[in-house]
Amino acid sequence: MGRPRTPLLDRERITTTALELVDEQGEFSVPQIARRLGAQTASVYHHVDGRDGIVELLRERVCDAIDDGAFELTPWDAAMAAWARSYRAAFAAHPRTIPLLTASPVRAPKVLQQYEKAVARLLDEGFPLADVMPVIIGLENLVLGSALDMAAPEMMWELADETATPQLARALGAVSESRADRAFEMALAGYLTHVRALLDTDRP
Amino acid sequence: MGRPRTPLLDRERITTTALELVDEQGEFSVPQIARRLGAQTASVYHHVDGRDGIVELLRERVCDAIDDGAFELTPWDAAMAAWARSYRAAFAAHPRTIPLLTASPVRAPKVLQQYEKAVARLLDEGFPLADVMPVIIGLENLVLGSALDMAAPEMMWELADETATPQLARALGAVSESRADRAFEMALAGYLTHVRALLDTDRP
Repeated sequence: MGRPRTPLLDRERITTTALELVDEQGEFSVPQIARRLGAQTASVYHHVDGRDGIVELLRERVCDAIDDGAFELTPWDAAMAAWARSYRAAFAAHPRTIPLLTASPVRAPKVLQQYEKAVARLLDEGFPLADVMPVIIGLENLVLGSALDMAAPEMMWELADETATPQLARALGAVSESRADRAFEMALAGYLTHVRALLDTDRP
Repeated sequence: MGRPRTPLLDRERITTTALELVDEQGEFSVPQIARRLGAQTASVYHHVDGRDGIVELLRERVCDAIDDGAFELTPWDAAMAAWARSYRAAFAAHPRTIPLLTASPVRAPKVLQQYEKAVARLLDEGFPLADVMPVIIGLENLVLGSALDMAAPEMMWELADETATPQLARALGAVSESRADRAFEMALAGYLTHVRALLDTDRP
């Protein structure tokens, strides 16, 4: 009987366990992570920069699935659309991380690098400096709201009595499959059209 | 010593307690509600239609703050914008309810009535039946993503080393206060402009 080959604790395993807990419960605690890994709470703290450090590890893990190669596409709005679709898919896989991650500041260096690329792409395109963050944040609003919707039940409205809401019943009857995708693509197209118009206005 | 004047348990108090728990933890359990109210878990179940029933009570409580009088405004896009702003404010007050409520179907009759009004307003305006739900869902994506953003820290990006992400540092330096509001209004305007164009295309 030698020592186990994989160490009991490392940042990868702590992150994986925290993500499992958030997927299940919407939250995690350091003692819960320790319990699942058969370790002492103090030992977990030895590997990470406090609870906030674990939140940043979660952010890095989820954002790793975002394709930031999208920023190399042309034209710029195709790049933003590809980034948005990939961003949405990454968070739709772990929707319960969304309120946790949006409630604390972005510190993870790898994630900050993704924002750096997004900002650089918009500045290159000629967006005024003051518009760049609002454009990115507006797109994120849309992406994260839609990621939550992707995790929603396919039948999102249950009418016990159709006669109480007859118009809603008709509108629901006319909805095709993939309602979430259709709504997202509609909102994305609208947003990018609007942002494109802002850019044209700002150009000399 | 008579009986207490307020009954220990009723749906209002159960809802209030569930909302406190979700605001604090992102989740609630029926035993937790019972403990806070000094009651037996079985007694709580006596007042509500299971855990799902409590989720619907939460939905009703949060959505009560949405002004559905907005649907009476003209033109229709001013009505949708007013509804969206009020919807966003209601959920920004309780952002941790968002993933809980989007993960289960809408059954609360009062909330279904709000959707009925939204659908009726869009049908009156001439939107094709199949477009009505996508238009509403796209708007909700934007609203809920932004409600999460309103609950975010004012300084959402913390750069330990500005030289690692120089463009991001510049863009953040140019952001004025109320970044969340500015991004939301930009996305809302874009969305409604796009939807207006769809309506004009569909009109004979």
